[in-house]
Amino acid sequence: MHDALAILVTGGTFDKEYDELTGRLFFRDTHVVEMLRLGRSRLDISVETVMMVDSLEMDDNGRATIVERCRARAERSIVVTHGTDTMVETAKALAAGGLDGRTIVLTGAMVPYAFGSSDGLFNLGSALSFAQVLPPGVYVAMNGQHFRWNEVRKDRDRGVFERVS
Amino acid sequence: MHDALAILVTGGTFDKEYDELTGRLFFRDTHVVEMLRLGRSRLDISVETVMMVDSLEMDDNGRATIVERCRARAERSIVVTHGTDTMVETAKALAAGGLDGRTIVLTGAMVPYAFGSSDGLFNLGSALSFAQVLPPGVYVAMNGQHFRWNEVRKDRDRGVFERVS
Amino acid sequence: MHDALAILVTGGTFDKEYDELTGRLFFRDTHVVEMLRLGRSRLDISVETVMMVDSLEMDDNGRATIVERCRARAERSIVVTHGTDTMVETAKALAAGGLDGRTIVLTGAMVPYAFGSSDGLFNLGSALSFAQVLPPGVYVAMNGQHFRWNEVRKDRDRGVFERVS
Amino acid sequence: MHDALAILVTGGTFDKEYDELTGRLFFRDTHVVEMLRLGRSRLDISVETVMMVDSLEMDDNGRATIVERCRARAERSIVVTHGTDTMVETAKALAAGGLDGRTIVLTGAMVPYAFGSSDGLFNLGSALSFAQVLPPGVYVAMNGQHFRWNEVRKDRDRGVFERVS
Repeated sequence: MHDALAILVTGGTFDKEYDELTGRLFFRDTHVVEMLRLGRSRLDISVETVMMVDSLEMDDNGRATIVERCRARAERSIVVTHGTDTMVETAKALAAGGLDGRTIVLTGAMVPYAFGSSDGLFNLGSALSFAQVLPPGVYVAMNGQHFRWNEVRKDRDRGVFERVS
Repeated sequence: MHDALAILVTGGTFDKEYDELTGRLFFRDTHVVEMLRLGRSRLDISVETVMMVDSLEMDDNGRATIVERCRARAERSIVVTHGTDTMVETAKALAAGGLDGRTIVLTGAMVPYAFGSSDGLFNLGSALSFAQVLPPGVYVAMNGQHFRWNEVRKDRDRGVFERVS
Repeated sequence: MHDALAILVTGGTFDKEYDELTGRLFFRDTHVVEMLRLGRSRLDISVETVMMVDSLEMDDNGRATIVERCRARAERSIVVTHGTDTMVETAKALAAGGLDGRTIVLTGAMVPYAFGSSDGLFNLGSALSFAQVLPPGVYVAMNGQHFRWNEVRKDRDRGVFERVS
Repeated sequence: MHDALAILVTGGTFDKEYDELTGRLFFRDTHVVEMLRLGRSRLDISVETVMMVDSLEMDDNGRATIVERCRARAERSIVVTHGTDTMVETAKALAAGGLDGRTIVLTGAMVPYAFGSSDGLFNLGSALSFAQVLPPGVYVAMNGQHFRWNEVRKDRDRGVFERVS
């Protein structure tokens, strides 16, 4: 393992776009590369698109693939972009995945990056920073906060992540 | 000292706006509060505007004021928004200021937040995250990277911060 | 009738927003007033929200209401914001509505104003201008073009309005 | 002369950008083509960059060049993008230029298009619409309004155009 970072893209609100022909939200390519350019990122980062799915469509197969892709990466620090609704479930799968020695940070957005009012750029800057300095483990980083995988839940009614004991 | 965060605003590119009557850039209020709202920040943060000056106008008096305001804050983690041209000088002043026990992170932007293509939101998310988890000391956080105060310089020709030994 | 303008809001893509709790698009208030402010409009305009519906939900009752509201307005020039899918049908209803002496221009957007890449501001500036100078009649203004109500159709596959003879 | 449109670009606030190395505003390429794409324009338009200057630097030579370029164009409808401070002076030069048979509309912006809060897209949609339907002559189109060249002045204190008699 080495000191560069990897971003594994799995879809989620982060990357949704508006289809002007159908009026529906859909996935095309990830916006992560454009976001890193906007942030003038000078980190050594590899971006890998693992899948592009809605958080509600993420299943055990998908989670197994994410664990496997994390294991295959040579980087010590990994950010996983993910839909918020099932982010905690994927964090659990990663924690059970035996990825010792790595700092893995899941992040996402409440509003698609392509829309004017997205929290995505803030969360990406935050997740990349936590991934560099937190000790090995699996974390969720949202809204400026970070949580260990086993001390967080999403309150869907309020759309926020909160600490559980 | 306690675990909440403080953001001390000093101006810089971060907060510049376009004056439509004169066509010049100027300062009005800080955008930091709006940026925290956009980032859906759930951190316990106090925002204090110390001054609103261009980085090139920051002098020893200004720096002394920033050191003094940091000392007066009860928070253990402090982010200072600052123009990029003299950010490293202010970091040095803070390091010499005897603010032991605090993690102080300076950040800024290459493009004003009010303009479409700003790196400000990325840097703010990054700086707030570093401020929470780095050990006590004075740091510069830009472009996703972080540097100790005595190992960084700004390359003005390329507009980037880089490590010096 | 007098020389001020009215904008009658009926919903459509123009005014859709992203609900961060459900991930769905929905209507709240119209963005037209904010758009006029962004355009620094100095026109004497009254904005009236007639309804907030998706274009595909617009029915004969809705169209009758729009005709009735146009008739009730004292302004000679009226812009109607409308979803694009059934805009031409509503234009026909307005043409049949006996609103002689008025210039009525329907317009809309392919992408919601609240999203970064919307054509809404361009179309609104265009529709307001056509409404001031075209002779009485009912028109559709989209993509910089204008059409009389009986010489236009929407090509849904390509998402554009085109002239029919 | 034929029915397509021309846009002659001369610079002005419209096209200013932020130089992140110097912190100054400057001109690079025009944003008009990108703006037409954002507006999903389906008009037959040729864009010609005549010059890229600040309105306050526009002099008689510059104005003579604009008149000459308008005369050289084959299109009946021409939009000229121009800084707002001397837009009325250039309108006068165009009116004196003997460009009979053409509808020429000058427009601009109070805030650069590259900044988040620009009126540019609204004004461009407006100017292109006026240029298609107003009778031959020289006009200024700003803030949704249009004025004949000899009945308008800019109130620089308030940043608005107003009718003079």
